[in-house]
Amino acid sequence: MTTNKKMKIKLYFFGKKNEITPREEELIKRIGFRSSLEIIPLAQAGVTDVSKAKQKEAEVLLGKINNKDFLVAFDEHGKELDSIQFSAQLKNWLVERSEVVFVIGGAHGLDESILARANVKLRFGQMVWTRNLFRLMALEQLYRALEIDGGGHFHKD
Amino acid sequence: MTTNKKMKIKLYFFGKKNEITPREEELIKRIGFRSSLEIIPLAQAGVTDVSKAKQKEAEVLLGKINNKDFLVAFDEHGKELDSIQFSAQLKNWLVERSEVVFVIGGAHGLDESILARANVKLRFGQMVWTRNLFRLMALEQLYRALEIDGGGHFHKD
Repeated sequence: MTTNKKMKIKLYFFGKKNEITPREEELIKRIGFRSSLEIIPLAQAGVTDVSKAKQKEAEVLLGKINNKDFLVAFDEHGKELDSIQFSAQLKNWLVERSEVVFVIGGAHGLDESILARANVKLRFGQMVWTRNLFRLMALEQLYRALEIDGGGHFHKD
Repeated sequence: MTTNKKMKIKLYFFGKKNEITPREEELIKRIGFRSSLEIIPLAQAGVTDVSKAKQKEAEVLLGKINNKDFLVAFDEHGKELDSIQFSAQLKNWLVERSEVVFVIGGAHGLDESILARANVKLRFGQMVWTRNLFRLMALEQLYRALEIDGGGHFHKD
Protein backbone atom coordinates (compact mmCIF):
# COMPACT_ATOMS: atom_id res chain seq x y z
CA MET A 1 0.00 0.00 0.00
CA THR A 2 1.43 3.35 -1.03
CA THR A 3 0.18 6.72 0.09
CA ASN A 4 -2.90 8.12 -1.61
CA LYS A 5 -4.99 11.26 -1.69
CA LYS A 6 -7.29 10.01 1.06
CA MET A 7 -4.37 10.30 3.43
CA LYS A 8 -4.02 13.74 4.86
CA ILE A 9 -0.98 15.76 5.90
CA LYS A 10 -1.49 19.02 7.75
CA LEU A 11 1.43 21.41 8.22
CA TYR A 12 0.97 24.24 10.70
CA PHE A 13 3.41 27.14 10.88
CA PHE A 14 3.47 30.41 12.78
CA GLY A 15 3.48 33.14 10.18
CA LYS A 16 1.52 34.54 7.28
CA LYS A 17 0.20 32.85 4.18
CA ASN A 18 2.04 35.34 1.95
CA GLU A 19 5.38 34.10 3.30
CA ILE A 20 4.90 30.93 1.26
CA THR A 21 7.25 31.22 -1.73
CA PRO A 22 6.67 30.08 -5.34
CA ARG A 23 9.06 27.15 -4.79
CA GLU A 24 6.99 26.07 -1.79
CA GLU A 25 3.78 26.41 -3.82
CA GLU A 26 5.32 24.11 -6.42
CA LEU A 27 6.20 21.50 -3.78
CA ILE A 28 2.72 21.79 -2.21
CA LYS A 29 1.17 21.12 -5.63
CA ARG A 30 3.43 18.11 -6.24
CA ILE A 31 2.80 16.68 -2.77
CA GLY A 32 -0.90 16.96 -3.61
CA PHE A 33 -0.52 14.33 -6.33
CA ARG A 34 0.43 11.69 -3.74
CA SER A 35 -1.55 12.71 -0.65
CA SER A 36 -3.79 15.49 0.54
CA LEU A 37 -1.78 18.39 2.01
CA GLU A 38 -3.10 21.36 3.90
CA ILE A 39 -0.65 24.08 4.94
CA ILE A 40 -2.09 26.31 7.64
CA PRO A 41 -0.64 29.61 8.92
CA LEU A 42 -1.19 30.47 12.60
CA ALA A 43 -0.85 33.94 14.12
CA GLN A 44 2.56 34.67 15.59
CA ALA A 45 2.41 36.13 19.08
CA GLY A 46 4.21 39.40 19.93
CA VAL A 47 7.73 38.89 21.22
CA THR A 48 7.95 41.19 24.26
CA ASP A 49 8.07 38.09 26.47
CA VAL A 50 9.40 35.02 24.67
CA SER A 51 8.01 32.53 27.16
CA LYS A 52 4.51 34.06 27.11
CA ALA A 53 4.57 34.36 23.33
CA LYS A 54 5.37 30.66 23.01
CA GLN A 55 2.58 29.78 25.47
CA LYS A 56 0.11 31.89 23.50
CA GLU A 57 1.16 30.26 20.23
CA ALA A 58 0.80 26.85 21.88
CA GLU A 59 -2.77 27.63 22.95
CA VAL A 60 -3.65 28.61 19.37
CA LEU A 61 -2.24 25.37 18.00
CA LEU A 62 -3.62 23.09 20.69
CA GLY A 63 -7.06 24.63 20.07
CA LYS A 64 -6.81 23.48 16.46
CA ILE A 65 -5.87 19.84 16.95
CA ASN A 66 -7.89 16.95 18.29
CA ASN A 67 -6.89 14.53 21.02
CA LYS A 68 -6.53 11.71 18.54
CA ASP A 69 -4.40 13.64 16.02
CA PHE A 70 -0.93 12.26 15.42
CA LEU A 71 1.33 15.26 16.01
CA VAL A 72 4.90 15.59 14.72
CA ALA A 73 6.72 18.62 16.13
CA PHE A 74 9.93 19.97 14.63
CA ASP A 75 12.27 20.75 17.50
CA GLU A 76 16.01 21.27 17.94
CA HIS A 77 16.13 18.37 20.42
CA GLY A 78 14.10 16.05 18.21
CA LYS A 79 15.44 12.87 16.70
CA GLU A 80 17.02 12.68 13.29
CA LEU A 81 16.02 10.42 10.45
CA ASP A 82 17.54 10.12 7.03
CA SER A 83 15.26 10.64 4.01
CA ILE A 84 14.60 6.92 3.54
CA GLN A 85 13.73 6.44 7.21
CA PHE A 86 11.49 9.50 7.18
CA SER A 87 9.68 8.17 4.12
CA ALA A 88 9.05 4.82 5.82
CA GLN A 89 7.84 6.48 9.03
CA LEU A 90 5.58 8.94 7.21
CA LYS A 91 4.00 6.10 5.28
CA ASN A 92 3.39 4.10 8.46
CA TRP A 93 1.84 7.08 10.19
CA LEU A 94 -0.42 7.82 7.20
CA VAL A 95 -1.50 4.20 6.77
CA GLU A 96 -2.21 3.78 10.49
CA ARG A 97 -3.74 7.17 11.23
CA SER A 98 -4.81 8.42 7.77
CA GLU A 99 -3.90 11.92 9.03
CA VAL A 100 -0.62 13.35 10.30
CA VAL A 101 -0.19 16.84 11.69
CA PHE A 102 3.20 18.59 11.51
CA VAL A 103 4.05 21.81 13.30
CA ILE A 104 6.96 24.21 12.80
CA GLY A 105 7.64 26.63 15.64
CA GLY A 106 7.66 30.41 15.46
CA ALA A 107 10.74 32.62 15.81
CA HIS A 108 11.54 31.15 19.24
CA GLY A 109 10.59 27.54 18.72
CA LEU A 110 7.73 25.58 20.25
CA ASP A 111 6.37 25.76 23.78
CA GLU A 112 6.95 22.84 26.18
CA SER A 113 3.21 22.08 26.15
CA ILE A 114 3.37 21.31 22.42
CA LEU A 115 6.54 19.27 22.78
CA ALA A 116 4.87 17.30 25.59
CA ARG A 117 1.78 16.71 23.42
CA ALA A 118 3.77 15.71 20.31
CA ASN A 119 3.81 12.01 19.38
CA VAL A 120 7.16 12.46 17.66
CA LYS A 121 9.78 15.22 17.69
CA LEU A 122 12.06 15.56 14.67
CA ARG A 123 14.91 17.81 13.61
CA PHE A 124 16.93 18.35 10.44
CA GLY A 125 20.52 18.23 11.69
CA GLN A 126 22.16 20.31 14.40
CA MET A 127 22.08 23.72 12.75
CA VAL A 128 19.59 26.45 13.64
CA TRP A 129 17.40 27.45 10.66
CA THR A 130 15.08 30.40 10.15
CA ARG A 131 11.44 29.33 10.31
CA ASN A 132 10.81 30.29 6.68
CA LEU A 133 13.71 28.25 5.34
CA PHE A 134 12.74 25.42 7.65
CA ARG A 135 9.23 25.33 6.14
CA LEU A 136 10.74 24.96 2.66
CA MET A 137 13.06 22.22 3.95
CA ALA A 138 10.12 20.38 5.55
CA LEU A 139 8.09 20.59 2.32
CA GLU A 140 11.01 19.25 0.30
CA GLN A 141 11.43 16.32 2.68
CA LEU A 142 7.68 15.59 2.66
CA TYR A 143 7.75 15.58 -1.14
CA ARG A 144 10.88 13.43 -1.21
CA ALA A 145 9.36 11.01 1.32
CA LEU A 146 6.22 10.50 -0.79
CA GLU A 147 8.30 10.15 -3.98
CA ILE A 148 10.48 7.49 -2.34
CA ASP A 149 7.36 5.65 -1.21
CA GLY A 150 5.69 6.01 -4.61
CA GLY A 151 8.78 4.98 -6.55
CA GLY A 152 9.18 8.38 -8.26
CA HIS A 153 12.37 9.63 -9.89
CA PHE A 154 12.89 12.64 -7.63
CA HIS A 155 14.98 10.81 -5.03
CA LYS A 156 17.99 9.58 -6.98
CA ASP A 157 20.77 10.01 -4.46
CA MET B 1 39.43 39.74 15.94
CA THR B 2 36.19 39.37 14.06
CA THR B 3 35.82 38.63 10.38
CA ASN B 4 36.24 41.51 7.95
CA LYS B 5 35.96 42.27 4.26
CA LYS B 6 39.58 41.37 3.59
CA MET B 7 38.67 37.78 4.40
CA LYS B 8 37.36 35.93 1.42
CA ILE B 9 34.78 33.17 1.11
CA LYS B 10 34.34 31.45 -2.23
CA LEU B 11 31.36 29.18 -2.82
CA TYR B 12 31.45 26.96 -5.91
CA PHE B 13 28.37 25.11 -7.09
CA PHE B 14 27.57 23.04 -10.17
CA GLY B 15 24.78 24.83 -11.96
CA LYS B 16 23.84 28.11 -13.58
CA LYS B 17 24.03 31.62 -12.25
CA ASN B 18 20.33 32.17 -12.97
CA GLU B 19 19.43 29.42 -10.46
CA ILE B 20 20.38 31.82 -7.67
CA THR B 21 17.11 33.02 -6.13
CA PRO B 22 16.23 36.50 -4.79
CA ARG B 23 16.46 35.16 -1.21
CA GLU B 24 19.99 33.92 -1.95
CA GLU B 25 20.92 37.29 -3.50
CA GLU B 26 19.76 38.94 -0.28
CA LEU B 27 21.92 36.63 1.85
CA ILE B 28 24.91 37.14 -0.48
CA LYS B 29 24.54 40.91 -0.06
CA ARG B 30 24.29 40.63 3.73
CA ILE B 31 27.28 38.27 3.94
CA GLY B 32 29.18 40.90 1.95
CA PHE B 33 28.92 43.33 4.87
CA ARG B 34 31.02 41.03 7.07
CA SER B 35 33.40 39.35 4.61
CA SER B 36 34.04 39.17 0.90
CA LEU B 37 31.91 36.49 -0.76
CA GLU B 38 32.20 35.21 -4.29
CA ILE B 39 29.65 32.66 -5.51
CA ILE B 40 30.82 30.85 -8.61
CA PRO B 41 28.76 28.57 -10.88
CA LEU B 42 30.57 25.67 -12.58
CA ALA B 43 29.29 23.74 -15.60
CA GLN B 44 27.37 20.58 -14.74
CA ALA B 45 28.48 17.54 -16.70
CA GLY B 46 25.97 15.45 -18.66
CA VAL B 47 24.55 12.55 -16.69
CA THR B 48 24.74 9.58 -19.09
CA ASP B 49 27.46 8.11 -16.85
CA VAL B 50 27.26 9.33 -13.26
CA SER B 51 30.80 8.31 -12.36
CA LYS B 52 32.33 10.00 -15.42
CA ALA B 53 30.17 13.09 -14.93
CA LYS B 54 31.45 13.44 -11.36
CA GLN B 55 35.06 13.02 -12.52
CA LYS B 56 34.57 15.66 -15.19
CA GLU B 57 33.06 18.07 -12.66
CA ALA B 58 35.95 17.36 -10.30
CA GLU B 59 38.48 18.26 -13.00
CA VAL B 60 36.71 21.57 -13.58
CA LEU B 61 36.77 22.41 -9.88
CA LEU B 62 40.32 21.21 -9.21
CA GLY B 63 41.47 23.36 -12.14
CA LYS B 64 40.06 26.41 -10.35
CA ILE B 65 41.61 25.98 -6.92
CA ASN B 66 45.20 26.35 -5.80
CA ASN B 67 47.22 23.87 -3.79
CA LYS B 68 47.19 26.13 -0.77
CA ASP B 69 43.43 26.83 -0.82
CA PHE B 70 41.52 25.67 2.24
CA LEU B 71 38.73 23.56 0.78
CA VAL B 72 35.50 22.69 2.58
CA ALA B 73 33.39 20.13 0.71
CA PHE B 74 29.74 19.49 1.52
CA ASP B 75 29.23 15.74 1.53
CA GLU B 76 26.66 13.30 2.93
CA HIS B 77 29.40 11.56 4.94
CA GLY B 78 30.86 14.81 6.26
CA LYS B 79 30.87 15.79 9.91
CA GLU B 80 28.14 17.81 11.52
CA LEU B 81 28.56 21.03 13.44
CA ASP B 82 25.92 23.13 15.13
CA SER B 83 25.63 26.79 14.10
CA ILE B 84 27.80 28.06 16.96
CA GLN B 85 30.54 25.52 16.22
CA PHE B 86 30.39 26.31 12.50
CA SER B 87 30.74 30.01 13.26
CA ALA B 88 33.84 29.39 15.43
CA GLN B 89 35.39 27.13 12.80
CA LEU B 90 34.69 29.51 9.93
CA LYS B 91 36.27 32.36 11.86
CA ASN B 92 39.37 30.30 12.62
CA TRP B 93 39.73 29.28 8.99
CA LEU B 94 39.30 32.87 7.77
CA VAL B 95 41.74 34.29 10.34
CA GLU B 96 44.36 31.64 9.62
CA ARG B 97 43.98 31.37 5.84
CA SER B 98 42.22 34.65 4.91
CA GLU B 99 40.40 32.65 2.22
CA VAL B 100 38.10 29.64 2.47
CA VAL B 101 36.66 27.76 -0.51
CA PHE B 102 33.37 25.87 -0.18
CA VAL B 103 32.01 23.49 -2.78
CA ILE B 104 28.53 22.01 -3.20
CA GLY B 105 28.25 18.93 -5.40
CA GLY B 106 26.13 18.56 -8.53
CA ALA B 107 23.09 16.33 -8.86
CA HIS B 108 25.09 13.23 -7.87
CA GLY B 109 27.37 14.67 -5.25
CA LEU B 110 31.13 15.17 -5.37
CA ASP B 111 33.77 12.93 -6.89
CA GLU B 112 36.16 11.03 -4.62
CA SER B 113 39.06 13.15 -5.89
CA ILE B 114 37.45 16.29 -4.45
CA LEU B 115 36.59 14.57 -1.18
CA ALA B 116 40.21 13.39 -0.93
CA ARG B 117 41.47 16.93 -1.63
CA ALA B 118 39.08 18.61 0.84
CA ASN B 119 40.53 19.87 4.13
CA VAL B 120 37.14 19.47 5.80
CA LYS B 121 33.93 17.65 4.83
CA LEU B 122 30.66 18.91 6.29
CA ARG B 123 27.02 17.97 6.09
CA PHE B 124 23.73 19.46 7.28
CA GLY B 125 22.02 16.52 8.98
CA GLN B 126 21.21 13.10 7.58
CA MET B 127 18.61 14.06 4.99
CA VAL B 128 19.28 14.27 1.27
CA TRP B 129 18.67 17.78 -0.13
CA THR B 130 18.41 19.03 -3.69
CA ARG B 131 21.50 20.98 -4.69
CA ASN B 132 19.54 24.23 -5.13
CA LEU B 133 17.98 24.08 -1.69
CA PHE B 134 21.34 23.06 -0.24
CA ARG B 135 22.96 26.20 -1.69
CA LEU B 136 20.36 28.36 0.05
CA MET B 137 20.91 26.41 3.29
CA ALA B 138 24.69 26.92 3.01
CA LEU B 139 24.28 30.66 2.41
CA GLU B 140 21.98 30.97 5.41
CA GLN B 141 24.49 29.17 7.63
CA LEU B 142 27.39 31.28 6.32
CA TYR B 143 25.38 34.42 7.08
CA ARG B 144 24.40 33.10 10.50
CA ALA B 145 28.00 32.13 11.26
CA LEU B 146 29.28 35.64 10.48
CA GLU B 147 26.43 37.23 12.44
CA ILE B 148 27.22 35.07 15.47
CA ASP B 149 30.87 36.05 15.20
CA GLY B 150 30.05 39.72 14.69
CA GLY B 151 27.50 39.84 17.52
CA GLY B 152 24.57 40.58 15.20
CA HIS B 153 20.91 40.05 16.11
CA PHE B 154 20.14 37.47 13.43
CA HIS B 155 21.05 34.44 15.54
CA LYS B 156 18.71 34.63 18.50
CA ASP B 157 17.86 30.99 19.07
